[in-house]
Amino acid sequence: MKTTAEILQNKRDGLENREDEIRRLVDGAVSGQIPDYQIAAWLMAAFIRGLNEVEMMALTRAFVDTGRKLKFDASDPPRVDKHSTGGVGDKTSLVVAPLVASAGLLVPMISGRGLGFTGGTLDKMESIPGYQTSLSLDRFQAQVRDIGVGIVSATRELAPGDAVFYKIRDVTETVESLPLIVASILSKKTAENLHALVLDVKIGCGGVMKSPAKAEVLARALVATGRQLGMKVVALLSDMSQPLGYAIGNALEVAEAVETLTGRGPQDFRTLCLELSGWMLALTGQVPDFQAGIKRAADLLASGHALESFRRMVLAQGGDVSTIDSSHRLLGQTAQSVVRAAGAGALSAVRADFLGRAALRLGAGRVQASDRVDPQAGILLHAKIGNPVKKGDPLATLYYNRQSSLEDALELARRAFQINSEAVERPKLIHTVVQ
Amino acid sequence: MKTTAEILQNKRDGLENREDEIRRLVDGAVSGQIPDYQIAAWLMAAFIRGLNEVEMMALTRAFVDTGRKLKFDASDPPRVDKHSTGGVGDKTSLVVAPLVASAGLLVPMISGRGLGFTGGTLDKMESIPGYQTSLSLDRFQAQVRDIGVGIVSATRELAPGDAVFYKIRDVTETVESLPLIVASILSKKTAENLHALVLDVKIGCGGVMKSPAKAEVLARALVATGRQLGMKVVALLSDMSQPLGYAIGNALEVAEAVETLTGRGPQDFRTLCLELSGWMLALTGQVPDFQAGIKRAADLLASGHALESFRRMVLAQGGDVSTIDSSHRLLGQTAQSVVRAAGAGALSAVRADFLGRAALRLGAGRVQASDRVDPQAGILLHAKIGNPVKKGDPLATLYYNRQSSLEDALELARRAFQINSEAVERPKLIHTVVQ
Repeated sequence: MKTTAEILQNKRDGLENREDEIRRLVDGAVSGQIPDYQIAAWLMAAFIRGLNEVEMMALTRAFVDTGRKLKFDASDPPRVDKHSTGGVGDKTSLVVAPLVASAGLLVPMISGRGLGFTGGTLDKMESIPGYQTSLSLDRFQAQVRDIGVGIVSATRELAPGDAVFYKIRDVTETVESLPLIVASILSKKTAENLHALVLDVKIGCGGVMKSPAKAEVLARALVATGRQLGMKVVALLSDMSQPLGYAIGNALEVAEAVETLTGRGPQDFRTLCLELSGWMLALTGQVPDFQAGIKRAADLLASGHALESFRRMVLAQGGDVSTIDSSHRLLGQTAQSVVRAAGAGALSAVRADFLGRAALRLGAGRVQASDRVDPQAGILLHAKIGNPVKKGDPLATLYYNRQSSLEDALELARRAFQINSEAVERPKLIHTVVQ
Repeated sequence: MKTTAEILQNKRDGLENREDEIRRLVDGAVSGQIPDYQIAAWLMAAFIRGLNEVEMMALTRAFVDTGRKLKFDASDPPRVDKHSTGGVGDKTSLVVAPLVASAGLLVPMISGRGLGFTGGTLDKMESIPGYQTSLSLDRFQAQVRDIGVGIVSATRELAPGDAVFYKIRDVTETVESLPLIVASILSKKTAENLHALVLDVKIGCGGVMKSPAKAEVLARALVATGRQLGMKVVALLSDMSQPLGYAIGNALEVAEAVETLTGRGPQDFRTLCLELSGWMLALTGQVPDFQAGIKRAADLLASGHALESFRRMVLAQGGDVSTIDSSHRLLGQTAQSVVRAAGAGALSAVRADFLGRAALRLGAGRVQASDRVDPQAGILLHAKIGNPVKKGDPLATLYYNRQSSLEDALELARRAFQINSEAVERPKLIHTVVQ
């Protein structure tokens, strides 16, 4: 049996770590027998040298086995989840989770908070007064079996090894490693005990992976590893060059999600929700194929079943459901400031990263994990790439409660827009589907 | 100014760290503001990506500046030291330091303890009853100015940054990195405030660097960096395929060093001491050239001045000088066991690594830093490479106080010797001199 020193040496020198060795690292980190600095050294070596498929699987399984898994009966419906690599204005989870649950599937969705310029599903849900994201594993499991859906934060009970490693990755510049990202995402999804998983890997300036080539490599690794873990997996590579929909910021995004759940909503956002839901329904055998899945998903929006499912979830988790029917109330008395077009033409860029950073300045996100978000702060777009604009047309409205960073945010928002004298084509929403 | 995160990112991605960034890491590690796990991640990245000459210099200087430097007056004689990368039976410091001091130079020698199969100068000196290796910096400095020489352990006052980094390197498998080795060695030597430094880089199975090519790269890096730090530096690449001299083990090695200080001693060991001393005398301008240095060194051995200098040092540091005149007394009533030749011929191998490990089993060294060494345990060789032997001739005598690992040690010692039917040439003692 190799010592911790030998496991480190091998990874340092670009050799393979065996499954039992990786398991020993993970278990040692969780029990505290292996100190942080040895895990930090291994993570840096793994970042630079990489992990092969066997090692990536071993790390994922080791994370899963440090905690519990959600338990379901044989008579329970299939479980399915969706995971996004994160973007600006990405509120798909708020629509997709209740929509798919309203088709009779179970959606045990464990989500994250926003950090940097990308938003987080939990922050969005928490802009609904009273909504609790922190449930015990037992209560979460009971809720999902009862009403089909829940959106909660990660608990120490599910894959705690991943949380221990992530905390060290976060302070040692080892977050952006493909195999470490794959193991982190899939360990939590495996602990959710899923039949199927649909991944939304964002491409463009507003996503984590800037390069389409890297995003596709990540998507393929997630699909291959997820399959080996026993799930049906599909990954969509979707556009994040401009924000998704019109709303950026927590309460604004809830309002847009609710609008979409009523069968309306921005075209690009609605389309992505239908595509993701279509795959989730198809992979779990609820419909014969993906096209039938899209149709079924559109029906569930039109019939109000998806919205009803969202309402049940908010109620079950303590949220004020009256805000769903009048979601403008979520915004309160927020001050507003409008960015207008400096010239005429067609919008050739509505940069997601600049707008994400502008929203962050307004208080919609976190610079550090300990920051508090302002649920009402955010940006509402009035035009997107390809739209014709005249000089003075409103391009975006900034919503804010604190004046201090408004000028910075306005400057960033202005720089997000580029106007072209010629017509501009809309960016393709779904680049590739990795099956 | 870059954050710790950005410094880590750059090294992780193979980019350069600037001098002020490296200084911030070192100062942060010493003050505790930068936690161990971030230093560990940086060290692993530095191990894999390497450090260039500018970074290596920056690290060395940063280590030096975390502590004090020895202070001397303009009227004090030049300071010179010798550093070996460590080997089996390497007791050159015990001869060279007092010898060179007896020529009127100051030799402020800060040494280390043994770990693994290589010995440590401090352990050897401590086999002299009463000898204190742990002096305050002020007392050490006063002694060197007074009698010209001292052999002491590192203190927290000299280059504490190196000690902080070394402690983390030791547990993160980042010890064997050329730039980190160079910075560690030269920071302590720079803090000694030297005019000249002679390095003895060992080549062969008994040294740390197994490959001659790697040893030469290390030697060249030490010489180049040492010069930039303002010292005159020469590095000898010397043989460590077989032990140096006949004695391995602390008291046995003191006895052999004393014998050599009286003008006798094993030929290979005496030659290496004269070569190292010759360079030390030449670099500090005590003699016109290296050849004159060797002659002068031989005179100092023959005249008894070198032995007298050794005696003064032992006395100054509290050691029992009577043991110098009857050094067999250091061995006490140790039990002995003899390894004999299994056949006839010429010795073609006397493997330093096997004999080092055999001595370690007998108690002469440490497996872990916290182990206590048995000063009397060790091995005395009776023949070396090239010597003709007959079947049954004694090859080595094992000295031990504990029976428990004797069989293991005997087995290792037997495997150390190989006998060839044809004549065998002695290995070259000095492979290269890097100036």
